[in-house]
Amino acid sequence: MVSDKNENSGAGMRIGLIGLGIMGKPMAENLLKAGFALTVYNRTRARAEQLQRKGAQVAASPKELASDSDVIITMVGNSPDVRSVILGADGVIEGARVGTVVIDMSTIAPGAAREIAAALGVGGVQMLDAPVSGGEKGALEGTLSIMVGGDATVLERVRPVLMAVGKTITHIGASGMGQVCKLANQIAVGLNNLAMSEALVFAMKAGADTAKVLQALQGGAANSWALQVLGPKILQRDFAPGFMVSLQQKDLRLVMEEAEDLRLPLPGTALTHELYRAVQNHGWESEGNHALVKALEIMGDLEVKCSE
Amino acid sequence: MVSDKNENSGAGMRIGLIGLGIMGKPMAENLLKAGFALTVYNRTRARAEQLQRKGAQVAASPKELASDSDVIITMVGNSPDVRSVILGADGVIEGARVGTVVIDMSTIAPGAAREIAAALGVGGVQMLDAPVSGGEKGALEGTLSIMVGGDATVLERVRPVLMAVGKTITHIGASGMGQVCKLANQIAVGLNNLAMSEALVFAMKAGADTAKVLQALQGGAANSWALQVLGPKILQRDFAPGFMVSLQQKDLRLVMEEAEDLRLPLPGTALTHELYRAVQNHGWESEGNHALVKALEIMGDLEVKCSE
Repeated sequence: MVSDKNENSGAGMRIGLIGLGIMGKPMAENLLKAGFALTVYNRTRARAEQLQRKGAQVAASPKELASDSDVIITMVGNSPDVRSVILGADGVIEGARVGTVVIDMSTIAPGAAREIAAALGVGGVQMLDAPVSGGEKGALEGTLSIMVGGDATVLERVRPVLMAVGKTITHIGASGMGQVCKLANQIAVGLNNLAMSEALVFAMKAGADTAKVLQALQGGAANSWALQVLGPKILQRDFAPGFMVSLQQKDLRLVMEEAEDLRLPLPGTALTHELYRAVQNHGWESEGNHALVKALEIMGDLEVKCSE
Repeated sequence: MVSDKNENSGAGMRIGLIGLGIMGKPMAENLLKAGFALTVYNRTRARAEQLQRKGAQVAASPKELASDSDVIITMVGNSPDVRSVILGADGVIEGARVGTVVIDMSTIAPGAAREIAAALGVGGVQMLDAPVSGGEKGALEGTLSIMVGGDATVLERVRPVLMAVGKTITHIGASGMGQVCKLANQIAVGLNNLAMSEALVFAMKAGADTAKVLQALQGGAANSWALQVLGPKILQRDFAPGFMVSLQQKDLRLVMEEAEDLRLPLPGTALTHELYRAVQNHGWESEGNHALVKALEIMGDLEVKCSE
């Protein structure tokens, strides 16, 4: 008799992964570590070949990858990229079969996610939108938070696959709701960054010991992931990206487009989006999203540093 | 031989506490529990008499209270209130002696704190500015986070007194710096509230299950004290105050005044202050500061609720 655990272990599932960027590559490595048979595809083939040396198959196209896979993960850029690799020429849709599951883990517009899911559904291919939070660090450590939209029974079938790359998997609702949740997440991430930035520039401009202020704020009602993880980096002037300004801006643009469709005013998010624009204008596009503080520093004519 | 511990136990110190409001009353009770001899003064005498039944002495004026105390705590409203009870007619300054320590735990302007400290210093009375974070809950449980400005050796002398009402005590810097830190704290508190509010109204307007969205956001880079503690209250439509809108506004007004003196633009804080004004206009002045979400709800023509 086969136990429940084995029935849902994902054993024997062949996985395809499209997009080996800053997030996709470590996710591919975690899938290999978990013992899945993995086929990869990347626009720049050299990155796929790095994975080949670790045991992955390399496909020549998304179509070829799809014909070799039971579950296909896409981790690419924006809505048009996802549309292209799934629905375009030589795309996933040409190789997938009835019962194949496509999991798009990119962050795209909720409406685009619903449209692509509907197009795949015509051929009996099921799709989940499953964007992630946790950045490169979460991808490397396999601790991503995954927000899932789509059919709950499909999620249960592929849960072992998602468990190989993430830690918290939350089924939010129907198709597109994973993306809605991710955008809500990015609203909070952006504004928490602004909260930290304004608190630190204020303390600095008033002549306070910013390291002590940061410590005090972490101890109470002002606390946030941003204050804990990014605050110390600001004091050390370490702007290496956990999550790049350019990607934060891409996500906030998706938020503002969605908010326009919903006729929902989001004044704080709009402000944050504009301030990140100033950060981009100064050439800090590829720094971490805590570089938002630099927009406030420029306006205040100062630079937040550790006192020591 | 007396141990170090006893030398700094605060034993024998007579404490005076002025201001028995939502914060001052539980602090007085914690001082009594810790075994301190306590004298209290409150503008409305009835509240002082409640403490009398628990063992406190009641003074007829701040002056009388000061003449009976080694350490005087003030926990009143705004800068003018603190100035009045300390420097006004029948004020603390008329009863205090050389070596008396005044600890102002109200949130007031950093400049006012420095001026009052200087006025007391002329007569050999030392003052610390020691505003707190943690709200009524922190005051009741004795777990306040206390941000201290002033002489570090004076802080060490009165540390046992502060330990009776708080948990985290951080010496930020010279006189006024406790208030600077508190205002930085309030900047972050206000904007973290805005982050949560915009994320939740977005999820609601897009038709998502807000309880699941909240859960997912708490698990990643969007997380904050606000999301953890206040988020569930919003979904339950529980707007009982931990920290009242009217007090949040008082503190943000202090921030904006200080920022003007510093010539520091704080666009996010200014926006938050304006949105709280809308909350006040609708009569929610005495609700908790998470009622900020209602300003966003009005603009978006919706109400964030738990899906169940």
